[in-house]
Amino acid sequence: MATDDDIKNLGEFGLIRKLTADIRNTNAGTITGVGDDAAVLDYTGKRVVVTTDMLTEGVHFNLVYTPLKHLGYKAAIVNFSDIYAMNARVKQLLVAIAVSAKFSVAMVEEIYAGLRLACQKHGVDLVGGDTTSSLTGLTICCTAIGECEPGSVVHRYGSGSNDLICVSGDLGAAYMGLQVLERELLLYQKDSSIQPVLEGYDYILERQLKPEARKDIVDMLAAMDVKPTSMIDISDGLSSELMHLCHASKKGCRIFAEKLPIHPQTRKTADEFNLEPLIAALNGGEDYELLFTLSLNDHEKIRNRHEITVIGHMLPEQEGKMIRMESGTDIELKAQGWNGLSR
Amino acid sequence: MATDDDIKNLGEFGLIRKLTADIRNTNAGTITGVGDDAAVLDYTGKRVVVTTDMLTEGVHFNLVYTPLKHLGYKAAIVNFSDIYAMNARVKQLLVAIAVSAKFSVAMVEEIYAGLRLACQKHGVDLVGGDTTSSLTGLTICCTAIGECEPGSVVHRYGSGSNDLICVSGDLGAAYMGLQVLERELLLYQKDSSIQPVLEGYDYILERQLKPEARKDIVDMLAAMDVKPTSMIDISDGLSSELMHLCHASKKGCRIFAEKLPIHPQTRKTADEFNLEPLIAALNGGEDYELLFTLSLNDHEKIRNRHEITVIGHMLPEQEGKMIRMESGTDIELKAQGWNGLSR
Repeated sequence: MATDDDIKNLGEFGLIRKLTADIRNTNAGTITGVGDDAAVLDYTGKRVVVTTDMLTEGVHFNLVYTPLKHLGYKAAIVNFSDIYAMNARVKQLLVAIAVSAKFSVAMVEEIYAGLRLACQKHGVDLVGGDTTSSLTGLTICCTAIGECEPGSVVHRYGSGSNDLICVSGDLGAAYMGLQVLERELLLYQKDSSIQPVLEGYDYILERQLKPEARKDIVDMLAAMDVKPTSMIDISDGLSSELMHLCHASKKGCRIFAEKLPIHPQTRKTADEFNLEPLIAALNGGEDYELLFTLSLNDHEKIRNRHEITVIGHMLPEQEGKMIRMESGTDIELKAQGWNGLSR
Repeated sequence: MATDDDIKNLGEFGLIRKLTADIRNTNAGTITGVGDDAAVLDYTGKRVVVTTDMLTEGVHFNLVYTPLKHLGYKAAIVNFSDIYAMNARVKQLLVAIAVSAKFSVAMVEEIYAGLRLACQKHGVDLVGGDTTSSLTGLTICCTAIGECEPGSVVHRYGSGSNDLICVSGDLGAAYMGLQVLERELLLYQKDSSIQPVLEGYDYILERQLKPEARKDIVDMLAAMDVKPTSMIDISDGLSSELMHLCHASKKGCRIFAEKLPIHPQTRKTADEFNLEPLIAALNGGEDYELLFTLSLNDHEKIRNRHEITVIGHMLPEQEGKMIRMESGTDIELKAQGWNGLSR
């Protein structure tokens, strides 16, 4: 029987009305938001920065252990992270969602609650989107739009041969959080009377399920008048992203294993899984931290900021891309990042 | 065994490089295109107009009879159409694609060939996107970005009580094309020795499989110095879209059944299916024509343009929303448009 909670009954337009009823725009540049064929924005005097990212059920998330609100939050955050990686600020978000028949209106509202929380936290207007159906599973595709002064855009290219390599926050935690979730799921699937053990993993679980995008770092660098020479966000793992910076800048690099910021809980959990914490930090992915290079002249400004760690330096291209182990040996860096397509 | 044509082997970055290797930007406002965390655009002095639309396999398209190149073309066109419906011009496109393991690199390249053909035809730069995997099926989510002079944006609201209701092209053809494709598929599924009969349906099949977005109408109206008072594109059927214009403008309307532009092949095929051509024109959907209202003062300018048909006029809200049948009777309009969510 059709109820208020039935998407079929409500229809596409009814659902969209329900999801967008109390959306209020807060940015002066948002001229028209939801409710027309397209959103209308004003970016006079600024560069427009735009990115899109798609998350699919079973590949990017497992609904068994991912709360829908967290999923909505994360879907927005991974896009915001790309905007911050350009040294820009996010202003608007568009959201396309496809759901299968198993989804209720309340479930879609939960996803939207997460999307809106992310928007609220980052000062972003939700200005449009598409809500439609799929034969199986849930797909969310977000498009984030941001702004930047013309001279402030930071690309993947641009780093010099002696530039410092910096990273915000810590690495590998989201990956270890995923390992814990997958382990508990497996145990539960074998014996459904077993309750998942998640205590003591709160930090790494939050990093996996509710990652944050580093607006604070972009703001902090601007306040210190520091412009990175190149920047990227870490979605596929430090190794893979650093290779992108090197490739785009036509440079080599050396990072130092002992310098990589790894949270104690990440180390402890990696030990538990008989994994090298270093491997989680290099290849884990989904950290959504910022990886950037700085001119040596800016070192003084950032050296006492605990949010930023200098992990190495760039090199001329022919010197290669290396990680120096604690033993003093240099090992060639390989991009073994998370690869959605090879699963 | 992995071959060059194997997505797993190529990896996400390899695939993206292959798909975007020879992309060249043509618009002055495209500062940075593919290859960074986000695209960078310059929209100084203009309004930015942005829209997103998701197509999912089995709901929006059936790969049994949809060539992948056509699908790519259509995925771009449906977004361009939303930009034109704001009286704006498309400048950039972002594309997110998720494919399951059954897709080869060559298949994804075919989709891209269609996307790029649409971009080329409409003077649009493909500036970014996301290529990832899904457990089942194909999903394409496009985001189109366009520009407009600040004073030229046309919304769904804004029409006056006496304004003329106009439509470009003809209606119901894409819907009848879909009926033919579905009929032939059904026959083929019953007896695979039967060859599909598609001769004589070329116009309506093209309307379904390779629709066009009406840039020419936006250009023509601008050249005649005509600014519609409200506008929407017809994706869900004339009835449904006209209700949107009335609702947004707080107006009623009367259209005339005999005025609706219907192609002879649409009529002939509707007869064959024992369908009223009028029903196909009102509720068929996927026409991607422009529906707009004009001040009576502009009537002279458009009356001899064969691309545009005046199908009725707006009314004060309390007079209702009606279609006058050839018999002279007024019937209340209902939005029974195509609804992806109710399938």
